[in-house]
Amino acid sequence: MSEYIKSELDGILESVMDDYAENKFIDKTDIFNQPDKRVIVDILHKLQQIIFPGFFKDTIYKVYTVRSTVAMLLEDVMYNLVKQIAIVLKYNKECAAASGEKVREEAERIAVSFFKTIPRIRAYIETDAQASFDGDPAAYNKEEIVVTYPGFYAVVVNRIAHELFKLGVPLIPRIMTEHAHSLTGIDIHPGATIGRYFCIDHGTGIVIGETTKIGDYVKIYQGVTLGALSTRGGQLLKNKKRHPTIEDNVTIYSGASILGGETVIGRNVVIGGNAFITRSVHEGTKVSVKNLELSYSEGNTKPVGDKTEDTSWFYII
Amino acid sequence: MSEYIKSELDGILESVMDDYAENKFIDKTDIFNQPDKRVIVDILHKLQQIIFPGFFKDTIYKVYTVRSTVAMLLEDVMYNLVKQIAIVLKYNKECAAASGEKVREEAERIAVSFFKTIPRIRAYIETDAQASFDGDPAAYNKEEIVVTYPGFYAVVVNRIAHELFKLGVPLIPRIMTEHAHSLTGIDIHPGATIGRYFCIDHGTGIVIGETTKIGDYVKIYQGVTLGALSTRGGQLLKNKKRHPTIEDNVTIYSGASILGGETVIGRNVVIGGNAFITRSVHEGTKVSVKNLELSYSEGNTKPVGDKTEDTSWFYII
Amino acid sequence: MSEYIKSELDGILESVMDDYAENKFIDKTDIFNQPDKRVIVDILHKLQQIIFPGFFKDTIYKVYTVRSTVAMLLEDVMYNLVKQIAIVLKYNKECAAASGEKVREEAERIAVSFFKTIPRIRAYIETDAQASFDGDPAAYNKEEIVVTYPGFYAVVVNRIAHELFKLGVPLIPRIMTEHAHSLTGIDIHPGATIGRYFCIDHGTGIVIGETTKIGDYVKIYQGVTLGALSTRGGQLLKNKKRHPTIEDNVTIYSGASILGGETVIGRNVVIGGNAFITRSVHEGTKVSVKNLELSYSEGNTKPVGDKTEDTSWFYII
Repeated sequence: MSEYIKSELDGILESVMDDYAENKFIDKTDIFNQPDKRVIVDILHKLQQIIFPGFFKDTIYKVYTVRSTVAMLLEDVMYNLVKQIAIVLKYNKECAAASGEKVREEAERIAVSFFKTIPRIRAYIETDAQASFDGDPAAYNKEEIVVTYPGFYAVVVNRIAHELFKLGVPLIPRIMTEHAHSLTGIDIHPGATIGRYFCIDHGTGIVIGETTKIGDYVKIYQGVTLGALSTRGGQLLKNKKRHPTIEDNVTIYSGASILGGETVIGRNVVIGGNAFITRSVHEGTKVSVKNLELSYSEGNTKPVGDKTEDTSWFYII
Repeated sequence: MSEYIKSELDGILESVMDDYAENKFIDKTDIFNQPDKRVIVDILHKLQQIIFPGFFKDTIYKVYTVRSTVAMLLEDVMYNLVKQIAIVLKYNKECAAASGEKVREEAERIAVSFFKTIPRIRAYIETDAQASFDGDPAAYNKEEIVVTYPGFYAVVVNRIAHELFKLGVPLIPRIMTEHAHSLTGIDIHPGATIGRYFCIDHGTGIVIGETTKIGDYVKIYQGVTLGALSTRGGQLLKNKKRHPTIEDNVTIYSGASILGGETVIGRNVVIGGNAFITRSVHEGTKVSVKNLELSYSEGNTKPVGDKTEDTSWFYII
Repeated sequence: MSEYIKSELDGILESVMDDYAENKFIDKTDIFNQPDKRVIVDILHKLQQIIFPGFFKDTIYKVYTVRSTVAMLLEDVMYNLVKQIAIVLKYNKECAAASGEKVREEAERIAVSFFKTIPRIRAYIETDAQASFDGDPAAYNKEEIVVTYPGFYAVVVNRIAHELFKLGVPLIPRIMTEHAHSLTGIDIHPGATIGRYFCIDHGTGIVIGETTKIGDYVKIYQGVTLGALSTRGGQLLKNKKRHPTIEDNVTIYSGASILGGETVIGRNVVIGGNAFITRSVHEGTKVSVKNLELSYSEGNTKPVGDKTEDTSWFYII
């Protein structure tokens, strides 16, 4: 390191230290420990191995029976999850004042409750794998879905994070779903409630808000938003139902937006690509964008071909 | 670990083991080995070093001549690719019944055939780098494209995966393209056929389906879907041409969707942003969305300025 | 390795070496060293620790006072940043001809100038954290924003990369923003100028071009493009203002596109979801898509409910 750099570094250090002293939010150095993202991603990876005992075998574990592998994984996840939950419980008002011992006990109670939901999580995921295979002609087998489909992965992570969210765990569920968001481009808030046989195709750009409720056999394509419709209420809207309800057997094609906490999309509805929906739709209805005419440059005013059938209901693969 | 946790863990293990016994698809523990994603990503990284001998130098290899570096990389990739192909060939009906020896020989034959396509892959990629540079005023030099452009990376991975797909390799090509999808938000199925001088700009949200055919000098922006248009046929549509054909020198602006296996976009066509196309377009035509009027709030009904020229043909950087 | 593979590998090596001899751009093996992406990502991670002294504690550093941690981080980043800048300065015409000593001195001068901007970068980021918290009812606390929000992360990286871009550093700023793009689906060119209190919600699919100018208190949702509108000028358009200007206190809802270097969006404007804007908008105006009627299938022509209020101004969470 040159003399020039050495001489400058001291001044830079002083200016940064002075800057920390301004008491901005980001200056806080005395905040308690934050949860460790790498540990939480590792927990997710091991839960994936528990949920799919035949897939995602980890070469680190040199054990050969399923039982001993799972026993080891359960113990490992339990140990780390309890530690991470104990950290984030400081965000919880009652726990912030409690003793370390009490917080630890609460973290253990929550972790055990979470583990007891694993069979339920697995039951849902079984139906998701089936729905993804049935609906996609590009799928060559169900293993391909489990191993490679980003939409399937995002749903697996939501099912795990949602159980922790229901148990009142701060921050960790969101770290899990944002990890999936980063890998897949699919942004499902851990608060969203999703029924059985849920299928996401492609998925990049999907947003599903915190208070969304989704029924069984729903299929959603890339770029769909299930969002809020409201004035700029910000934090005042906290804990209000702001996102739509989607009933059973609904299909929502790519780029559609469905907005508002009172918006209910009835059973068997099909929403066409790019539709913008801000009020409820009766069961069985097909909705598509009208009046989206195209302009063709001169001399080529007629489109090719003689297609006359209704092509408003899209199935995009 | 507390006594409470210890006592609970046993019950949790039993309930998970019981759950595995239900014979769901995801319960399968006796499935054969799956391909290893980390190994396949490493293969991709090394193929990138072979394709671009001057870039992506890996500090692990302490060799200084190009020849010995490439010889080492080829041998390394060959070894691992043969192993991974031998695993996935079990999805192939003939191979499922064959001896390990026969499967291994078939895997070697496929890997050698793949390696012989490297000069062809490189010839295509050379044209892609040129097309990306020529078309983007934000590019400072071609090295920037090779090192940082996500659209270019997604195309490089497609060109590799497509050759393996044509050789009948299951699963591995899809793992490769889904890795690129995860890094770039660009979802190109390995089955898609893409001509020379292909250019993707920005790219997040692009979906290009399995049976798409794309000519030379085609440029595509973020959020474009080249998808299928059909009823909900699911697996019954397998192996049918479901996605469009894009001829030479076509530009497709951001957010446009072109759908259907019989849809042909002729030479020199320009498709405007957000257009929704479900039938063929004559060569030379410019297509844009009409009637997409904007509503301005009261007192501000007039837009600023006196622009009167046609601004329907968009070039979005 | 089988005899078959061994015999084939030699031929493959020769054909690849022959292919390198064709003098394509990608054949170049004598190009100078490229910057190392992994080092640049590590620099970003350490700058994040400097900017947020209480978050992102790295377990590798076993030091307990903030001062000594920051001193170590500053020295580490300085050392690596100077090395990487010295590499990329070869893209700079004056530096390409200069001695290694001169280039090194220039790299040091630039790195020191960059470090002196840290308090300014931090002042902006403080306002971004506040804006993200105030605007999002799904945020439980500000720590959640710093630790998990992808839009916040993309803005932090832009603020760092933008300072290096202004100092004339080639390639490295773009590697930084493309790293953030890969993690978040948010593509902000390092050249874009962004005011205080900037807030991105969800963010996947956002594109903000090189010459964009954004004022204070601006909020942008997923899928928004701030892009260029022009003929296919390619490299001829280099260094021209091609992207819009967004004035203070503007909100742009999901999927909207605002295009063109002369397009100015005035103060307090609200742009509705999916709007396509190619000319300037007066201050205080609300703009939304008109005529986007929906078609309902027979027997269900009426939408549910009696909503009559204007729902054109969207707040999507």
